[in-house]
Amino acid sequence: MAKNDAPKTAISPTRQEDYAEWYQQVVRAADLAENSPVRGCMVIKPWGYAIWENIQRELDAMFKATGHRNAYFPLLIPKSFLEKEAEHVEGFAKECAVVTHHRLVAAGPGGGLIPDPKAVLEEPLIIRPTSETIIGAAFASWVQSYRDLPLLINQWSNVVRWELRTRLFLRTTEFLWQEGHTAHATADEARAETRQMLEVYATFAERFMAMPVLRGPKTASERFPGAVDTFAIEAMMQDRKALQAGTSHFLGQNFARASGIKFQTREETEEFAWTTSWGTSTRLVGGLIMTHGDDDGLIVPPRLAPAHVVIWPVFRGDETRGQVLAYIDALGSELRAQRLGDRPLEVEIDKRDLRGGDKQWDWVKKGVPIRLEVGPRDVDAGAVMVARRDRSPRDKASMTRAEFVGRAVEILEEIQRGLLARALAYRNEHTRPIDARDEFEAFFTPKSKNEEKPEIHGGFALSHWCGEALCEATVKDALKVTIRCIPEGGFEGAPWEGRIAEPGACVVCRKPSQRRVVFAKAY
Amino acid sequence: MAKNDAPKTAISPTRQEDYAEWYQQVVRAADLAENSPVRGCMVIKPWGYAIWENIQRELDAMFKATGHRNAYFPLLIPKSFLEKEAEHVEGFAKECAVVTHHRLVAAGPGGGLIPDPKAVLEEPLIIRPTSETIIGAAFASWVQSYRDLPLLINQWSNVVRWELRTRLFLRTTEFLWQEGHTAHATADEARAETRQMLEVYATFAERFMAMPVLRGPKTASERFPGAVDTFAIEAMMQDRKALQAGTSHFLGQNFARASGIKFQTREETEEFAWTTSWGTSTRLVGGLIMTHGDDDGLIVPPRLAPAHVVIWPVFRGDETRGQVLAYIDALGSELRAQRLGDRPLEVEIDKRDLRGGDKQWDWVKKGVPIRLEVGPRDVDAGAVMVARRDRSPRDKASMTRAEFVGRAVEILEEIQRGLLARALAYRNEHTRPIDARDEFEAFFTPKSKNEEKPEIHGGFALSHWCGEALCEATVKDALKVTIRCIPEGGFEGAPWEGRIAEPGACVVCRKPSQRRVVFAKAY
Repeated sequence: MAKNDAPKTAISPTRQEDYAEWYQQVVRAADLAENSPVRGCMVIKPWGYAIWENIQRELDAMFKATGHRNAYFPLLIPKSFLEKEAEHVEGFAKECAVVTHHRLVAAGPGGGLIPDPKAVLEEPLIIRPTSETIIGAAFASWVQSYRDLPLLINQWSNVVRWELRTRLFLRTTEFLWQEGHTAHATADEARAETRQMLEVYATFAERFMAMPVLRGPKTASERFPGAVDTFAIEAMMQDRKALQAGTSHFLGQNFARASGIKFQTREETEEFAWTTSWGTSTRLVGGLIMTHGDDDGLIVPPRLAPAHVVIWPVFRGDETRGQVLAYIDALGSELRAQRLGDRPLEVEIDKRDLRGGDKQWDWVKKGVPIRLEVGPRDVDAGAVMVARRDRSPRDKASMTRAEFVGRAVEILEEIQRGLLARALAYRNEHTRPIDARDEFEAFFTPKSKNEEKPEIHGGFALSHWCGEALCEATVKDALKVTIRCIPEGGFEGAPWEGRIAEPGACVVCRKPSQRRVVFAKAY
Repeated sequence: MAKNDAPKTAISPTRQEDYAEWYQQVVRAADLAENSPVRGCMVIKPWGYAIWENIQRELDAMFKATGHRNAYFPLLIPKSFLEKEAEHVEGFAKECAVVTHHRLVAAGPGGGLIPDPKAVLEEPLIIRPTSETIIGAAFASWVQSYRDLPLLINQWSNVVRWELRTRLFLRTTEFLWQEGHTAHATADEARAETRQMLEVYATFAERFMAMPVLRGPKTASERFPGAVDTFAIEAMMQDRKALQAGTSHFLGQNFARASGIKFQTREETEEFAWTTSWGTSTRLVGGLIMTHGDDDGLIVPPRLAPAHVVIWPVFRGDETRGQVLAYIDALGSELRAQRLGDRPLEVEIDKRDLRGGDKQWDWVKKGVPIRLEVGPRDVDAGAVMVARRDRSPRDKASMTRAEFVGRAVEILEEIQRGLLARALAYRNEHTRPIDARDEFEAFFTPKSKNEEKPEIHGGFALSHWCGEALCEATVKDALKVTIRCIPEGGFEGAPWEGRIAEPGACVVCRKPSQRRVVFAKAY
């Protein structure tokens, strides 16, 4: 199809034309975020932040329902704390923001400000890239006896990791996140906590984000620095790459030993506690965009939408204005009295002085689940013109006002379910058990050899792996493909569900393997 | 009264004995926060953080109800941004955390880590002490036309100011806060916004914190660096010092000019926008402690309490255990189905293996509004033993279960009102119009000359001031007393309400003055 025959889309380029650029354009068109003058840091704009607030509220309720309490720990970490855990420092010292001075001073007449040489810190401070070490220091003083355990804490905060290549929401120097930190009396309890929080993330992703996820442990090379085991949820984006959307770490006694988190057992012996940590971040907003967005912009799953319904008036002259606006305001109030899950319906009434077409596309691009137009004829007929974001922007239908009010929540739930089903179908379509090495290589090699073109490759390969780091590294070097997880859940009902745990031969070296793992390119 | 005749209090020293130390001990006894290993930074513990979450939720709802939307801006500010506004840099460059490197590197064999000399930032970054400059840069690109105004944004975040003398919640190097930033087409609109947010703070303080506040403009010397006008709410603590609990600034066009926030007017001319900013912080938790706490610990106003009711079982043997616990669980569920304002009642059931006395004092010190004890006899009688935190810890009364369930919300509202009334009476008792300079000096001079003893002085003096900075400085130097605000509200119904606006003579120089101002020592 020649370009000028293509149906016009609100976002250019389309996903097919250039996925990475499509992503940037959706972020811009939906007014979610923008780059800031500070290298690698983003400004999260109101529409993007409102999605994050909804994510926060739902996750926070799930954390509290599983017995966790929020607290807050310092932004700044003494350098010596970072040094306490050998693997941890190796993982984080290379990409951190270092505070060395506590004052600026005039450089001289007209010379601007410089860090004051008289205000050098005795010990440099690091802006937290993650808080195991500083929270560990607090836990060490909070935990004395088995009676103080388990200690179940969560923190909502900002962190800084000095990333070289950044991308709005997906990888930024500063990002917002939550980090759970818990301490337990036994390894079993800590392992159970690690798994519980992985399940919380998976449930949240599927129930609220309508984003199907695989879950399972990471291989040793992909573990969090200092962890004994790292588990992750992994989702497929529409360019078929994987997005790691949440991680849960069993830290063994490594950090307890480094921070001195000791307790007296029931038997009056002294032992190091067993700790976990788990986190997810504003990256989820990126995952939401890439799971549901289409060539007309963002699609927000209703359960996380800042507005569920937008209503705007359509009129030519001024004589019917008051009547239409009154109708809309009353309709808005009726809708706001209803609930989707725990949340009252959020209704946006758009009275801006804008052409109807511009207004429509504005809300299409922002991804509001339901759009309503109301004109004088609708008022006369007691009707509304309804458009759903999960259908074509041109697809509108008239409904009676009463029917719409009665069915609004049901339609939103239908959209929510439909988005999950569509994403699941997409993932299944692009997931395949692969045994032969040449098929594996072909699967991950984009059809086009043109480097300028987007890299649309196969998707998720379910292949055997012998367990050797060398085979893993071979695949990573050759194809930029990594093992996303050793899947333990998320394939329920898929045709290959039964083939995950079947024995086979490593896709690289042909040595025997007991189960398949998920290979994919990843963000 | 000799020390050993004094009634035992849970907090030692008492407020009277040593107010500053009493404060620290309440923070510790209620498990609100602690000092961290990082100089001047605090760890906010779950009970303290839960109070802050409640403060956040209520304020956030009030901001949204007045049309503001949340967003998020970078933590790090380029040094050159800070330099844009002359007064602003003067105010903040002296106490900021400066990031100069983006990597740590091993110093050599066994030498630990040092900031990598190869990773020096081209331009140092400042951890935000406040965000006018970085938000101004964003606003400059968001605002093009009068149609983009007003722009009404709020941010919840952490900030860092390098304070020399710190105190948990009241003054810490890092603190949590919200900062509102708005841009308007006219000075009048921006001034109205400044006042509106001042009223939001005052309403919040009185309605939720049960903390009466005065409100009005600051004098020039107490203004926010770069502001045209600063307004504040000021509360009296129980050592009769003032706590500035929230500020709202009219910034004129100063920051718009510095950041280039320009817009095309309806008349197609170009103009700088008029901006405001307003903020309040975790300092509010300190204000809550010092307004309501007593010699037995914290008292949390019900509307901000992390738990409204705590229930614990009292039994000797094991035979009645199940019966008592079932009674308590059912009671908890019935209470949780009720609401105080918008919030469901929060009920804590304390089944810890602790002596009843220890348990009681633990919750007294944490300030939970209502404590319920339930033993086998209460179960038999269908009763509960009720204690209120606003009464003596020894004051308990039996109520039937049905009566308590029916009256719980009413009792909580009564406690809330009672706390406000008590705080207001305290402030009125220690506020006085003072005209003579010697009376003024005596009022602010503690009775005891012993420097080791707490400084309990008079309170708020309503005195005349000629408007000269010199007279203000004289009082500050001599007595450490400052003008808290030029009161415009908060004295309604007080005996001296009518005397605020009466003419008189400056308490320092006797020059004529048109109205009284509030002089006080302050945090």
